[in-house]
Amino acid sequence: MSQYQAPLKDISFLLKHVFNFEQHAQRCGLELDGDTALAIAAEAGKFAKEKIDPINRKGDTQGARWNDSKVVTADGFKDVYQAFCDGGWSALRFPEQYDGQGLCSVVSTVVDEMWHAASFSFALCPMLTNGAVEALLTAGSDALKQTYLKKMVSGEWTGTMNLTEPGAGSDLAAVQTKAVPHADGSYRISGQKIFITYGEHDFTDNIIHLVLARTPDAPKGVKGISLFVVPKFLVNADGTPGARNDVRCASIEHKLGIHGSPTAVMLFGEQDGAIGYLVGEENRGLEYMFIMMNEARFAVGLQGLSISDRAYQHALAFAQERVQGRAVGEDGSQGKTIIRHPDVRRMLLSMKSRIDAMRALAIYVSTQKDLAHSSSVPELAKNAAQARVELLIPVIKGWFTETAQRITYDAVQVFGGMGFVEETGAAQYYRDARIITIYEGTTAIQANDIVGRKTLRDEGTAALSLIDEIALTVASLKKSGNTADDVVANRLEQACAALRESISWILANGKANPRSVYAGSVLYLELWGVVCGGWMHALRLLAAHEAGVAPDDLAEKRASAQFYAEHVLTGAGVLASTILHGGDSALNFPDTHWL
Amino acid sequence: MSQYQAPLKDISFLLKHVFNFEQHAQRCGLELDGDTALAIAAEAGKFAKEKIDPINRKGDTQGARWNDSKVVTADGFKDVYQAFCDGGWSALRFPEQYDGQGLCSVVSTVVDEMWHAASFSFALCPMLTNGAVEALLTAGSDALKQTYLKKMVSGEWTGTMNLTEPGAGSDLAAVQTKAVPHADGSYRISGQKIFITYGEHDFTDNIIHLVLARTPDAPKGVKGISLFVVPKFLVNADGTPGARNDVRCASIEHKLGIHGSPTAVMLFGEQDGAIGYLVGEENRGLEYMFIMMNEARFAVGLQGLSISDRAYQHALAFAQERVQGRAVGEDGSQGKTIIRHPDVRRMLLSMKSRIDAMRALAIYVSTQKDLAHSSSVPELAKNAAQARVELLIPVIKGWFTETAQRITYDAVQVFGGMGFVEETGAAQYYRDARIITIYEGTTAIQANDIVGRKTLRDEGTAALSLIDEIALTVASLKKSGNTADDVVANRLEQACAALRESISWILANGKANPRSVYAGSVLYLELWGVVCGGWMHALRLLAAHEAGVAPDDLAEKRASAQFYAEHVLTGAGVLASTILHGGDSALNFPDTHWL
Repeated sequence: MSQYQAPLKDISFLLKHVFNFEQHAQRCGLELDGDTALAIAAEAGKFAKEKIDPINRKGDTQGARWNDSKVVTADGFKDVYQAFCDGGWSALRFPEQYDGQGLCSVVSTVVDEMWHAASFSFALCPMLTNGAVEALLTAGSDALKQTYLKKMVSGEWTGTMNLTEPGAGSDLAAVQTKAVPHADGSYRISGQKIFITYGEHDFTDNIIHLVLARTPDAPKGVKGISLFVVPKFLVNADGTPGARNDVRCASIEHKLGIHGSPTAVMLFGEQDGAIGYLVGEENRGLEYMFIMMNEARFAVGLQGLSISDRAYQHALAFAQERVQGRAVGEDGSQGKTIIRHPDVRRMLLSMKSRIDAMRALAIYVSTQKDLAHSSSVPELAKNAAQARVELLIPVIKGWFTETAQRITYDAVQVFGGMGFVEETGAAQYYRDARIITIYEGTTAIQANDIVGRKTLRDEGTAALSLIDEIALTVASLKKSGNTADDVVANRLEQACAALRESISWILANGKANPRSVYAGSVLYLELWGVVCGGWMHALRLLAAHEAGVAPDDLAEKRASAQFYAEHVLTGAGVLASTILHGGDSALNFPDTHWL
Repeated sequence: MSQYQAPLKDISFLLKHVFNFEQHAQRCGLELDGDTALAIAAEAGKFAKEKIDPINRKGDTQGARWNDSKVVTADGFKDVYQAFCDGGWSALRFPEQYDGQGLCSVVSTVVDEMWHAASFSFALCPMLTNGAVEALLTAGSDALKQTYLKKMVSGEWTGTMNLTEPGAGSDLAAVQTKAVPHADGSYRISGQKIFITYGEHDFTDNIIHLVLARTPDAPKGVKGISLFVVPKFLVNADGTPGARNDVRCASIEHKLGIHGSPTAVMLFGEQDGAIGYLVGEENRGLEYMFIMMNEARFAVGLQGLSISDRAYQHALAFAQERVQGRAVGEDGSQGKTIIRHPDVRRMLLSMKSRIDAMRALAIYVSTQKDLAHSSSVPELAKNAAQARVELLIPVIKGWFTETAQRITYDAVQVFGGMGFVEETGAAQYYRDARIITIYEGTTAIQANDIVGRKTLRDEGTAALSLIDEIALTVASLKKSGNTADDVVANRLEQACAALRESISWILANGKANPRSVYAGSVLYLELWGVVCGGWMHALRLLAAHEAGVAPDDLAEKRASAQFYAEHVLTGAGVLASTILHGGDSALNFPDTHWL
């Protein structure tokens, strides 16, 4: 197995030169300079490499096990979780008021990438806790916050999200779990939830479940869903875990990947009803959940980046080592490892150029999240930043995760036959990655989101405003006088035109012909990803010129951008054409004739 | 689990109307009419559905196990293998002289698709035996043929292909296994082979290994490789298995998929040397192996079609059953299952349109194989057919198997979260499929083949001759007076132009700039697949018109072809552009800067 290396060099380039972190921090009123941010990243990289990465294989091969009605996590997971909390990593992003470290989204993004890369299965636990903390911060009463937040921020207790039921997956309107008000102001929750990540485990003394359920008189559909806190152990007045609540894990799933992460079937209220506490107001659960879901979707997108980078590093190490045949057009003096083969180089740069684009975009969106949440930023700018975040969350979730499929696939391919046997570990990344286009909303759900809520609802305002901004970057790159970059500028310009064409068509047909529009929604989402990735490459090139990086560093960034331009951006026109013309065949297909 | 349905309706359409099997059989001098061919297909479909499909899940969940130095196959495998042989299915394609049934390639293709679809892991055993039989038929001495062929044709003994070694995967020049001549005319083989499919199992009394090895004075590289028969048990004069030969299985691999198929590490000659018998002449082993490999590559391509169809059927059954959310733009009166969602329809038709194209192309290539091997066909036509087969083998292997990745991926996606848990079986197809772009030559090896041996070597003759033929189909479709088909004709015409442009560029740059050419080789291979698939859709439409099929049948074929035109053929131009311009970034990438 190769050893995970945190991408500190790229992070440093991005923070210093592409996104000017010093200026960003000042603008957001953060007391954090660039060197400190990079020092935190370096420290996280060390922890990820030395502590988390080594347990990852065991997580896969041994997995979380269901043993005597308990979940036993893989060897090392519990200890590393403890070390993770002891190091303060669980508290990074949260307010100091709850013993968090109050760090900004940019830093937490940089660091979270490393956790997921080092062990996807492990990092899911803090990721879910983060989501639960966000929900309580957003909508929890003071009492709930006092009772739960500090323990969750410290990692002493973990959190879960209980949305899915056997009959309610993508369609949360179908949630059936019940919540009956009790005289003392609490509720009695009963029902079954499935696919609950870290719904049960052996890391901590308590687990705090956030659960979607319906009160007795709730309206039908999504407007009748409320959010509840259901702790595994009720909390005593002194804050210690008390009586066992009526919620239990019935079993865990046997899955294609992320074996280290227990995926639980949860039963609420088999006896008297699980005691739950309303978060915010009744019937607004989905609204709160969406705040949390935006965070979760961003995090899952980040997992796409992470596992891509990990798989890339693993394949790269193999390609730099494995000797197999002389490369075409070479005499062997350039080395005889398979990285000399043109197609292996193509695969590696295909991975790298997409990873470069994704990492930059993740940090870009994080800057917008910071702006949207900062009290020092004027209202107008905050709103603009928030609109940008909301537009791009489905892109991060949908495009990163789909891209990760291709990258982890190529990584196996670089290994050849050795990639198909489990012993090399290449297959694990491929298997683990498969979940991310499904959970927290499938790619189609993200696509519906970007078509419906993010394009049609504001008549394309947020979308076109971003494309206008990308056009400015294109113009700057063209003016920069580096003719070698023209191909990037030109391909990006063409891709933007394709995106504009798609938007116009979607706006024109959204009402009259919604099924045709939605038949192309996944392609539209992909087109957004393609364009945003190209934008990031353009920004990277501009920053590299401005910073006057060393020739080889420039060559690296340029090759990555050129590859992206010729292999990815060139696909934009076809995506647009297919969005416009490709829907009807599937819609009109005679349903009696599928077989 | 859904139950496998052999695609008899499509096969009937293809044999009757698209490829005119009656006429084909006459031309090849075969004593087989269309009804008999379809009756055989129906019988095979029944066996696949009723006998093989039911053991497939057990093959995955239980797998072949390594138990007390023996391989124990999954429950049911051994019995079904026996029934398979008893039914005469192992003998289908082979000469009557060896107790085969002498059926043609078209019929064996149709039937083989079903075996692989019903259980990929199971069908690998007869598939490997077929390859070994082909090698012996081609190059074996009369004595070898007499000793082995009847038992292998009947399935009483199975065959294997022993090529790969730890240091020799894609590069067979690195083969190190030794073969030392012995006074009695046999050889003593020693060395280690890995990734040997069904190298050991419990189906039969004997296993006949075909092994690549080097004699002591052999030239270096691929010109010094010879082919040997090494039986597990030496064969007595009366044809019964005798003494144990010095070859054994040391272990089997733990793999991502095809768990039911034992993948063995084989040790030859740990004691005195395994007794082996030369096939054909010394140092011509690779040549013989390539004959066998062409068969094997075609078979692996077929596996791509098979697993695609199986995964499609499975996803379709789920989509027709699962209720989840009301589809956009509908009021629910069209049904509430997820097949009403535009994106689910898009995924299903994406699968189906590619499957339709692949199945037609597999049968088309089989007609050419039949022509090339028939003694009733004039020499010139035989040669033309053989050239066509050789051009298209890498397309069948490379494009079908890559396409299968997308299809099995989408099939999991249709299942959503239920696809990621192993219990539904969707994940198995996805895992099983992962091997086919690797074994029998990775996609890059197929791509090298189509660039080097199939395009550059004859200066594009075979390639351009096929494109000229496709142009005739385009012209016919345009003339057919069905304007609804114009989009198919036009997109196919544009795709052909893109392919011609790529060929010209490859021919112009093959010598001067081979690394740039090979950097785009996988894209060139894909472009071939895209164009050939479009050709098949055009032929299907023409045949449907000519046959005057029912309106719904025409609508089905038309929707499939239109989808293919708008979603697949449209990508041809970008592939050509990337072939021409996309290579240099990867080739020039500074090797010190990958991380």
